[in-house]
Amino acid sequence: MASSAVSYARENQQRFLGELKNFLRIPSISTLEEHKSDVQKAADFVASELRRIGMENVEIIPTKGHPLIYADWLHAAGKPTVLMYAHYDVQPPDPLDEWLSPPFEPTERNNNIYARGAVDDKGQLWMEVKALEALMKAGGGKLPLNVKVIIEGEEEVGGESIAEYVRKQKTKLKADFALVCDTELFAPDLPTLCVGLRGLVYTELEAVGPKTDLHSGMYGGAAPNPFFGLIEIISKLKDSKGKVLIPGFYKDVKAPTKDELKAWKRLPFKDEAFRKAEVGSSVLTGEKEYPTLYRLWARPTVEVHGMPGGFTAPGAKTVIPAKAAAKVSMRMVPNQDPDDILKKYTAYVKKLTPKGIETKIKVWSKGPACVVGTDNRYIKAATEALHDTFKKDTVFIRSGGSIPIVTDFQDFRMC
Amino acid sequence: MASSAVSYARENQQRFLGELKNFLRIPSISTLEEHKSDVQKAADFVASELRRIGMENVEIIPTKGHPLIYADWLHAAGKPTVLMYAHYDVQPPDPLDEWLSPPFEPTERNNNIYARGAVDDKGQLWMEVKALEALMKAGGGKLPLNVKVIIEGEEEVGGESIAEYVRKQKTKLKADFALVCDTELFAPDLPTLCVGLRGLVYTELEAVGPKTDLHSGMYGGAAPNPFFGLIEIISKLKDSKGKVLIPGFYKDVKAPTKDELKAWKRLPFKDEAFRKAEVGSSVLTGEKEYPTLYRLWARPTVEVHGMPGGFTAPGAKTVIPAKAAAKVSMRMVPNQDPDDILKKYTAYVKKLTPKGIETKIKVWSKGPACVVGTDNRYIKAATEALHDTFKKDTVFIRSGGSIPIVTDFQDFRMC
Repeated sequence: MASSAVSYARENQQRFLGELKNFLRIPSISTLEEHKSDVQKAADFVASELRRIGMENVEIIPTKGHPLIYADWLHAAGKPTVLMYAHYDVQPPDPLDEWLSPPFEPTERNNNIYARGAVDDKGQLWMEVKALEALMKAGGGKLPLNVKVIIEGEEEVGGESIAEYVRKQKTKLKADFALVCDTELFAPDLPTLCVGLRGLVYTELEAVGPKTDLHSGMYGGAAPNPFFGLIEIISKLKDSKGKVLIPGFYKDVKAPTKDELKAWKRLPFKDEAFRKAEVGSSVLTGEKEYPTLYRLWARPTVEVHGMPGGFTAPGAKTVIPAKAAAKVSMRMVPNQDPDDILKKYTAYVKKLTPKGIETKIKVWSKGPACVVGTDNRYIKAATEALHDTFKKDTVFIRSGGSIPIVTDFQDFRMC
Repeated sequence: MASSAVSYARENQQRFLGELKNFLRIPSISTLEEHKSDVQKAADFVASELRRIGMENVEIIPTKGHPLIYADWLHAAGKPTVLMYAHYDVQPPDPLDEWLSPPFEPTERNNNIYARGAVDDKGQLWMEVKALEALMKAGGGKLPLNVKVIIEGEEEVGGESIAEYVRKQKTKLKADFALVCDTELFAPDLPTLCVGLRGLVYTELEAVGPKTDLHSGMYGGAAPNPFFGLIEIISKLKDSKGKVLIPGFYKDVKAPTKDELKAWKRLPFKDEAFRKAEVGSSVLTGEKEYPTLYRLWARPTVEVHGMPGGFTAPGAKTVIPAKAAAKVSMRMVPNQDPDDILKKYTAYVKKLTPKGIETKIKVWSKGPACVVGTDNRYIKAATEALHDTFKKDTVFIRSGGSIPIVTDFQDFRMC
């Protein structure tokens, strides 16, 4: 049956691609209030396709934020149950002038589709839906195992609603394993299973100096500047060699196994090619004593993503702003506990905060790392299925990214 | 004659105030395109009053931006010539909900007039015009010295048009001294002359790391982050005690005279009142070894005004941006040379720039400090005139701010 499903998918590939492009045209940017109706539109688009291909109990579940989509098909008695996950929301597309083609007008170049969300995560989501369609067709309206689908629209903004839903609906969502389609093939045509993710603590570090914006001519030299406060703090979070300086930060870090490290060394990866083709900087940075993939997949880091506040338009305005902030995130690895790290970070920031400045930390999202053993029976089954299709051995990778819901799945023994 | 001019002014005070209020009702906000016609209206208002009181050669001079106003009266043979400056444009009034009375409906409270522009600079401008009127009336249609008036409508937006005009019209504007009415009385009823301004070098420090925006999950730990590059550099521009660390930065700094410092100590100024009422921070910062007014008026500083780039909207986006920037300015004091300081700053930034990051410096504005000796003959004459009216000694202050046009006046020996 699998091979006839594959044939069906091959025969219908052009239609599948056309549908995916329509999906990509919906600017479902979850973080921007003005795109709220587009996010709803993307949810409707997915739910209506799940209904059309024969999935049952399809629901669009309202939340405090953006809707969840649930669907199932549970008639394969005695077979395992999979919980399939993906997300239909995307990141903002700015800066717009760096796109070669418009972010919401999918364009094919170099055998790729370029559009915001094409690989994160609409392409993978549509692949899941189309796999269900193909298996359903090949099975005469039946699937070879029990399937529950849960799809969210807040992955890019912390995934709070799905986390709440998963905690409340443990029975409804109970499954034998979870399939999280939000990662990548390591190289074209190389069957890949991602078995590990870094965790994430994403904060906004807010600093207040004077009570109102001041003129730097009249007050510069006596009024505390919140930007200097932030810079003083952040310059001490990480040293120039990439080592995080928060006391106790590395204490619980668990290294990958020797087998994993050996396998990573065999992957088709060259620092120099990665630097040139992907990063495009003059050098790679970070802890020199760890190989690049090790740093990316299994070492924790600190980054700054933006510093809102003050004057940012072209030109000159001599303001000492009352407030400024920094978006500071930390990637976690096994076995770091996000709450523990947040506590250490908060205490350290407090200690570093200079006189005249008040700091406050807002937490935008928080989740631990997650790693699955490659001897897991569903990982083995997936490996065999991939071999059937690709005729190649699967490589096991991790991802440096974070998918918060994976932790929740893990918490009720699905990962 | 001066005293009869003062009498005339006292007799006509209510009319003068009524006219000023009409002037304040015109929302001449130079930075907002939708107020362009109001800015023009304010120019017409001033020009027509200059004509009415007997000034000659009154011109409204169109520019690329908002118009300049010129007027003169040059019949005092053998007497000095003054160039009088003010501006008729104002800042935007937002945030509107913090006004106790509407910004463009002048209201008297606590013996003050509250309206946008009342003290910056329409009040001072109208005082200049009314002084000319009173002197003209008292002198039977004649002024006691030669007067040239130049008034601009772009002071709040960089003052480009007047700078261009002044450079081109050196002969037309030639004078023995310039009277710049855009500063304050240090306290009510305290005759004050501002005899010094700090200079300014305002730069945009741009940093580039990766060639495109990267996801911090996929690349964090190996890709250089331009925000960390900027933070590493800026954290070394100034230490936590307010000392600027750019090598050679203080080399040419000329301290105020002992007389000046003594005079500043006698001014009605209390650190604690200034901190609470004006700055509103928990402490005042900066070089502790210098008193506050000394720091504000006669010590150079470095400030950061904003850090454009990356993700700054509410929420979380895990981006390592390709580019980020910092608006970094330096206030100059006598005898620092802005070009020399810019050279030292540029060399130091280059030295501090970490591997993987490229930096570039854009200069938004650049002008030296300007201080006039209190033994200057026009300063002395002004002091005597102030004593006649206030029956008090004049205090000499400086301002920590910069008025770009003052440098242009100075360049052709008017200051």
